[in-house]
Amino acid sequence: MGVNPLSKILVLHGPNLNRLGQREPEIYGHETLDQLNARLQQRGREWGLEVSVFQSNHEGALIDCIHEAEGEYNALIINPGALTHYSYALRDALASVSVPAIEVHMSNIHNREAFRGISVTAPVTAGQIVGFGSAGYELGLRAAIRFLKGP
Amino acid sequence: MGVNPLSKILVLHGPNLNRLGQREPEIYGHETLDQLNARLQQRGREWGLEVSVFQSNHEGALIDCIHEAEGEYNALIINPGALTHYSYALRDALASVSVPAIEVHMSNIHNREAFRGISVTAPVTAGQIVGFGSAGYELGLRAAIRFLKGP
Amino acid sequence: MGVNPLSKILVLHGPNLNRLGQREPEIYGHETLDQLNARLQQRGREWGLEVSVFQSNHEGALIDCIHEAEGEYNALIINPGALTHYSYALRDALASVSVPAIEVHMSNIHNREAFRGISVTAPVTAGQIVGFGSAGYELGLRAAIRFLKGP
Amino acid sequence: MGVNPLSKILVLHGPNLNRLGQREPEIYGHETLDQLNARLQQRGREWGLEVSVFQSNHEGALIDCIHEAEGEYNALIINPGALTHYSYALRDALASVSVPAIEVHMSNIHNREAFRGISVTAPVTAGQIVGFGSAGYELGLRAAIRFLKGP
Amino acid sequence: MGVNPLSKILVLHGPNLNRLGQREPEIYGHETLDQLNARLQQRGREWGLEVSVFQSNHEGALIDCIHEAEGEYNALIINPGALTHYSYALRDALASVSVPAIEVHMSNIHNREAFRGISVTAPVTAGQIVGFGSAGYELGLRAAIRFLKGP
Amino acid sequence: MGVNPLSKILVLHGPNLNRLGQREPEIYGHETLDQLNARLQQRGREWGLEVSVFQSNHEGALIDCIHEAEGEYNALIINPGALTHYSYALRDALASVSVPAIEVHMSNIHNREAFRGISVTAPVTAGQIVGFGSAGYELGLRAAIRFLKGP
Amino acid sequence: MGVNPLSKILVLHGPNLNRLGQREPEIYGHETLDQLNARLQQRGREWGLEVSVFQSNHEGALIDCIHEAEGEYNALIINPGALTHYSYALRDALASVSVPAIEVHMSNIHNREAFRGISVTAPVTAGQIVGFGSAGYELGLRAAIRFLKGP
Amino acid sequence: MGVNPLSKILVLHGPNLNRLGQREPEIYGHETLDQLNARLQQRGREWGLEVSVFQSNHEGALIDCIHEAEGEYNALIINPGALTHYSYALRDALASVSVPAIEVHMSNIHNREAFRGISVTAPVTAGQIVGFGSAGYELGLRAAIRFLKGP
Amino acid sequence: MGVNPLSKILVLHGPNLNRLGQREPEIYGHETLDQLNARLQQRGREWGLEVSVFQSNHEGALIDCIHEAEGEYNALIINPGALTHYSYALRDALASVSVPAIEVHMSNIHNREAFRGISVTAPVTAGQIVGFGSAGYELGLRAAIRFLKGP
Amino acid sequence: MGVNPLSKILVLHGPNLNRLGQREPEIYGHETLDQLNARLQQRGREWGLEVSVFQSNHEGALIDCIHEAEGEYNALIINPGALTHYSYALRDALASVSVPAIEVHMSNIHNREAFRGISVTAPVTAGQIVGFGSAGYELGLRAAIRFLKGP
Amino acid sequence: MGVNPLSKILVLHGPNLNRLGQREPEIYGHETLDQLNARLQQRGREWGLEVSVFQSNHEGALIDCIHEAEGEYNALIINPGALTHYSYALRDALASVSVPAIEVHMSNIHNREAFRGISVTAPVTAGQIVGFGSAGYELGLRAAIRFLKGP
Amino acid sequence: MGVNPLSKILVLHGPNLNRLGQREPEIYGHETLDQLNARLQQRGREWGLEVSVFQSNHEGALIDCIHEAEGEYNALIINPGALTHYSYALRDALASVSVPAIEVHMSNIHNREAFRGISVTAPVTAGQIVGFGSAGYELGLRAAIRFLKGP
Repeated sequence: MGVNPLSKILVLHGPNLNRLGQREPEIYGHETLDQLNARLQQRGREWGLEVSVFQSNHEGALIDCIHEAEGEYNALIINPGALTHYSYALRDALASVSVPAIEVHMSNIHNREAFRGISVTAPVTAGQIVGFGSAGYELGLRAAIRFLKGP
Repeated sequence: MGVNPLSKILVLHGPNLNRLGQREPEIYGHETLDQLNARLQQRGREWGLEVSVFQSNHEGALIDCIHEAEGEYNALIINPGALTHYSYALRDALASVSVPAIEVHMSNIHNREAFRGISVTAPVTAGQIVGFGSAGYELGLRAAIRFLKGP
Repeated sequence: MGVNPLSKILVLHGPNLNRLGQREPEIYGHETLDQLNARLQQRGREWGLEVSVFQSNHEGALIDCIHEAEGEYNALIINPGALTHYSYALRDALASVSVPAIEVHMSNIHNREAFRGISVTAPVTAGQIVGFGSAGYELGLRAAIRFLKGP
Repeated sequence: MGVNPLSKILVLHGPNLNRLGQREPEIYGHETLDQLNARLQQRGREWGLEVSVFQSNHEGALIDCIHEAEGEYNALIINPGALTHYSYALRDALASVSVPAIEVHMSNIHNREAFRGISVTAPVTAGQIVGFGSAGYELGLRAAIRFLKGP
Repeated sequence: MGVNPLSKILVLHGPNLNRLGQREPEIYGHETLDQLNARLQQRGREWGLEVSVFQSNHEGALIDCIHEAEGEYNALIINPGALTHYSYALRDALASVSVPAIEVHMSNIHNREAFRGISVTAPVTAGQIVGFGSAGYELGLRAAIRFLKGP
Repeated sequence: MGVNPLSKILVLHGPNLNRLGQREPEIYGHETLDQLNARLQQRGREWGLEVSVFQSNHEGALIDCIHEAEGEYNALIINPGALTHYSYALRDALASVSVPAIEVHMSNIHNREAFRGISVTAPVTAGQIVGFGSAGYELGLRAAIRFLKGP
Repeated sequence: MGVNPLSKILVLHGPNLNRLGQREPEIYGHETLDQLNARLQQRGREWGLEVSVFQSNHEGALIDCIHEAEGEYNALIINPGALTHYSYALRDALASVSVPAIEVHMSNIHNREAFRGISVTAPVTAGQIVGFGSAGYELGLRAAIRFLKGP
Repeated sequence: MGVNPLSKILVLHGPNLNRLGQREPEIYGHETLDQLNARLQQRGREWGLEVSVFQSNHEGALIDCIHEAEGEYNALIINPGALTHYSYALRDALASVSVPAIEVHMSNIHNREAFRGISVTAPVTAGQIVGFGSAGYELGLRAAIRFLKGP
Repeated sequence: MGVNPLSKILVLHGPNLNRLGQREPEIYGHETLDQLNARLQQRGREWGLEVSVFQSNHEGALIDCIHEAEGEYNALIINPGALTHYSYALRDALASVSVPAIEVHMSNIHNREAFRGISVTAPVTAGQIVGFGSAGYELGLRAAIRFLKGP
Repeated sequence: MGVNPLSKILVLHGPNLNRLGQREPEIYGHETLDQLNARLQQRGREWGLEVSVFQSNHEGALIDCIHEAEGEYNALIINPGALTHYSYALRDALASVSVPAIEVHMSNIHNREAFRGISVTAPVTAGQIVGFGSAGYELGLRAAIRFLKGP
Repeated sequence: MGVNPLSKILVLHGPNLNRLGQREPEIYGHETLDQLNARLQQRGREWGLEVSVFQSNHEGALIDCIHEAEGEYNALIINPGALTHYSYALRDALASVSVPAIEVHMSNIHNREAFRGISVTAPVTAGQIVGFGSAGYELGLRAAIRFLKGP
Repeated sequence: MGVNPLSKILVLHGPNLNRLGQREPEIYGHETLDQLNARLQQRGREWGLEVSVFQSNHEGALIDCIHEAEGEYNALIINPGALTHYSYALRDALASVSVPAIEVHMSNIHNREAFRGISVTAPVTAGQIVGFGSAGYELGLRAAIRFLKGP
């Protein structure tokens, strides 16, 4: 996988994902966010990617971070948490930068409450990976590699 | 009322509640938030509760605060303000901690604009107290005492 | 609590509440309606209130009872049962008298079937207390005391 | 107006109309139901009609009464009160007899709450008279005279 | 019926009512609009009213006519035809004058196509008379007499 | 069919079913309710069942009756009439007893008015039999026998 | 095609069709309304039809014209323009005459804005021809010939 | 039960019913489709019916089969499986033949996912039997016998 | 009509159209599908078109057929039957080939059941011809000729 | 403001605006339409614009006027009155000319009846100015000047 | 324009407006937020206004800022960005202060995605200016001047 | 990646995917289905998987194939094409087998037509991969490997 070793990926975690491992483990598993992030960065090293991570419970902080990614990163991997379902401001932030975004959800949002089946951010992303637990982030990294390689 | 004197309650006020006493007094009365908070803390002392208070206009700050309540408080009393009607992130924060929450609204949200009749947070709370002005918070404290006493 | 010892409260129970303690105890508990009523009347005596109780499975009987409360009671505490969700006639009865009403639901109606989240009576009540089991009625008595004391 | 002097009309009043004159007089006026009924019976005598009246807060009692009107009355004038908006059972009762019914509403149900604009009974009546206060009943008597006269 | 002999009523017929007697006679009967108007004017003479009539298939002409009624007539009786269901401009015209309006429909609009059950003009009228064929206009004249007499 | 001869079935008829044979015979046939009940009791005797019957136009009376069936009957067969479409109180009554209920409709409620296609009681019954005229009750008795026999 | 040479067809063009050739030519083409009308009249002569044409931006004028077609024309071909989507008055006009109508739309109204997919006039026409540009009118003439020939 | 011994019934099973006994046994039980079919044919022999069976996962094959039933069978018993909820083509097939159809669902489709509560085929069937497990097919055979016997 | 004599048209009939002449003749007439097809092929010969026909009750077979039309036919005339209302797969098939399609419905789908007024295939066709019975297919052939001639 | 002195602006007033100053002055103020028009023409002279005005209660007359504006005016300022909420014909008229249009509403249409919050014309205008009383027209003139100046 | 030189205006920019000039320039143009702000402050100086500016991607920061404007500014001009479509908290903030607000949108929100056509903040503002690019802010300043001048 | 070399994966392609490379290449690319399948099988060999492929335009054939996968394959990767949006039968097929399924869509179904944003199959799959072109299938293979490896 001869990806450019300088490729940079930013992984964004939205509200409540800092509670990973503590919150509803029957849905989200026992791995903490730090463990997940460490694993993603390890995967990045194995696959020639520089992986940065950021988590916030503040919509505005996530938007600021997306803006700053312009020109700094080759791709975004974002799990917007519950902001997925109403934050048109986050959607506009993703649309306002040229960095492609990949939306990840750990649970299958389509077999939970009805409101979780609607994503206002999905239309401005490159694609979504839904339902594979924390493995979804790794699939997101691989999907990003495909973008970086071009068609 | 032999409640454990160490019982700790966190009262959370959402956006615009800092304007209490100044904002639409015909709906919300003339008492300021500081006065209300002082009264609740006085009630707490009378009833053997340690009452802490927090207000923010920032959804993210409220979520942070809820997370930090885990293991620190026995119950939350929360008036999410207008976040009630759309903040699924706040809902997920309440669901992510084991501290029971009691939702309070000062006005009768069911005889105002239609959008106020919908609460996205209510399904993950223990209960709601709606429409009794600032007395609703005191009823919330009493409801919390019931929780602390057990069934 | 120097409430007028002559203060009179009418507690109204709607359809199926006579089955309390027998019906779906995992939701409503094991206390029977008679036990609950006795406890409320005991609370009334402690708090200087004269508490009357009435239950009916007949919408019309509840309406008749509300009409007769005019001039006889200082406040109504009503759990309309499933009539909550469609009885505009009950709503009009509550609106047709000057006695303030407090709506009580034992279960959290917002995390059950969708139809239970809609109350056609709530807009004409003073407030609602939702989700604290039979303790909700006691909170309702306390809320009524606040009304009787005035602002 | 040579109407058959034996023509018999039944005027039915639904839930809460017994409160007429006491309930929301700014909407419904100060005349009591007894006064209104007396006036309608007086009009009946002037116009050669035998006018009977019945009021109940019980849906079932109104249905029983409609069934008994079969073969006894030439026309029904009915103000179903709030049952208008949901009682399909009342609708079926009206449809199950051959006596024509005229629906009367004292207030203009189209400029109040949205739910009042929907009548589930109207489709099975001969016609509606809406918004003329208690005069609507007198117009209903006149409309019934037209039916009795035939085309 | 000692109504002021100078009382003036304008009867307005909306689109397609010029086809009365020819159009769907199973619904609207065989009487022509001229015959109906003559009858209404005859009734007016009997009851001490000066009845004028106007029909147009042009929404704008009806609006002009309503404007000109200001200060000239004591009441309007209007059958807006199918404009009932969508003409907010006609509604605003009725609302823009101080002459009270009575809405008449010959057929029972509630047991025909669903769209006919909705009236955008009804909320700004004094009342509606629905479903008594051409007799509805006469009932409308009587309702107007009540207005002119005052309470 | 070796069903226990002591098996007891209660057949409940809702509003307007007392008009059977007189009401809309093109839909419901010419058999009266008494004739139908006699036939069902005859079938019961043939099949080793003790069949009781009850009809009321009062929602509350039906609810009372369902409550009293607890411990007295092995199964309920209920045609709720038009209460089917809105009586959540009836639904809760059925859910509050352990006697299984079978819902019967004589006409095919799915090819009549749209509102008849919705049953708020169906979700808490064991099953529905729809559209076979009065034969549906007999099919209901047979379905009840299956319940009594066990799987 | 031995159609009766006296057969008369009226082609009606609704609002904005006078702008044909100038308005959005990428949708409607460059042919003007006069050119289209001339072509239709030429086709009429070829096929033994007497074709008349009328255009108006006034809903009322179109209704008047439809009324006058009664007894004068054998068929109507009508492109109601945007009135298609809301003019119940036009619909009633078409329903009030015995002349069969054929609805024509030049563009495919089903792949434009959602509101264009709804025709309130279609239910009272004989049929629709949608999406073949100005050729749709010629197909409409042929469809009319079929009607004139009978089955 | 003197039914004509030549009476022929076709039992149709829609998509996924071949998985009976293997698929979600907590909902559908452990009996296989072959066992169920054998039981139905045995019942047929007992009750003087010739019972044929057919299952397909192909909507088109079911439609073909319904067409071929014309003139060959006296009644259809059909469990359309999930086609119930969207196959207007199956509905039209049932409507296109003169053989009466009885719709059977093994589970109570009204207390599962919302989409299962809607049947597009029900309006063109004679009736439905819902929720009695595989016994519903036997009830369907009995209902068919009633049809064959006539009123 | 100097159309290229090699022009080839494929006429596709969807589910249940094989029942033409037998199914609901009051809606669809007495002509059989074979007779209709023969007439269309005769028209084709008169107008210089080579007309092929295909009918299937299988959505998949229709899709296969549309795919095979690519490069073989100049135009498709398709009556999708009830698939019109839900088969997005058929829609995608039509969109996946470059052959223009003309949608034909024999009945006026806009004055039947509400579900028939919605076509999911219409947005990807060139146009629709609705409501002229089997003559609609002939109009479809003429519309196709217009396409073949170019603008 | 060196705008070309020949710049021509057409101000269009829709239905009921001729009643300005007389109609609901608490919403629309006491200024008459003539006074408003005079003021706008005065502003035009001050700012180098030639301002023409037109008012009609006839939808068709407004459409004619818009068509005639093509090539004659540089910009339209239009207050469509209640046509705003349903006149797709007016929308198409605005779309059919190349003159840019600015939509003005005197009241804040978003805090009145729900139906006033919907504008079917807004999507084809350059912009809207809502809620500043008659000053909105002056802001419209200024906005038009911006268009005339170019970017 | 003799406005009081001490008049103070606060211009608030919501989420993503810091990306102006970089984000979707085909919609929002090439001017940066700093350039726009400088221009507005220059206009303020020309027109005797003191113009302050603030931008944040944080809903809470905007709410804080609105609260602080009380008593400090004469008017607010606010472009809430995508918060327009869901932030009831922002709406309540605007309603909680006595400073009038003017809502500005640079693009025509009515001809973009459907969700952009809904403003939850508009009902509590004085008015909206929509669709004139950055010139809308200048029109907003002028509209504010009108407020400051009084009627 | 020490996956069991005997692991078997079935890749299912729904309607119209046989047109890959020919159909709308601007959306789906130029690769044919055979090329894609060959690539997936090559990937399978590299990663120790035995990959089988199947495509059909027949819903029933896909259901048959899913049934046969039970006990034969370790995982399904399925792109249901347009059946995604309505085939509850396909959904039930997926739910009826114990083989986990992964849903793949090549395009971002959330920024196309509204109907494509709804998947009736998603709730019964393990997860979805949306929007990465044909690379989505490879990500699906990797996701399947994760399942095979266990948590």
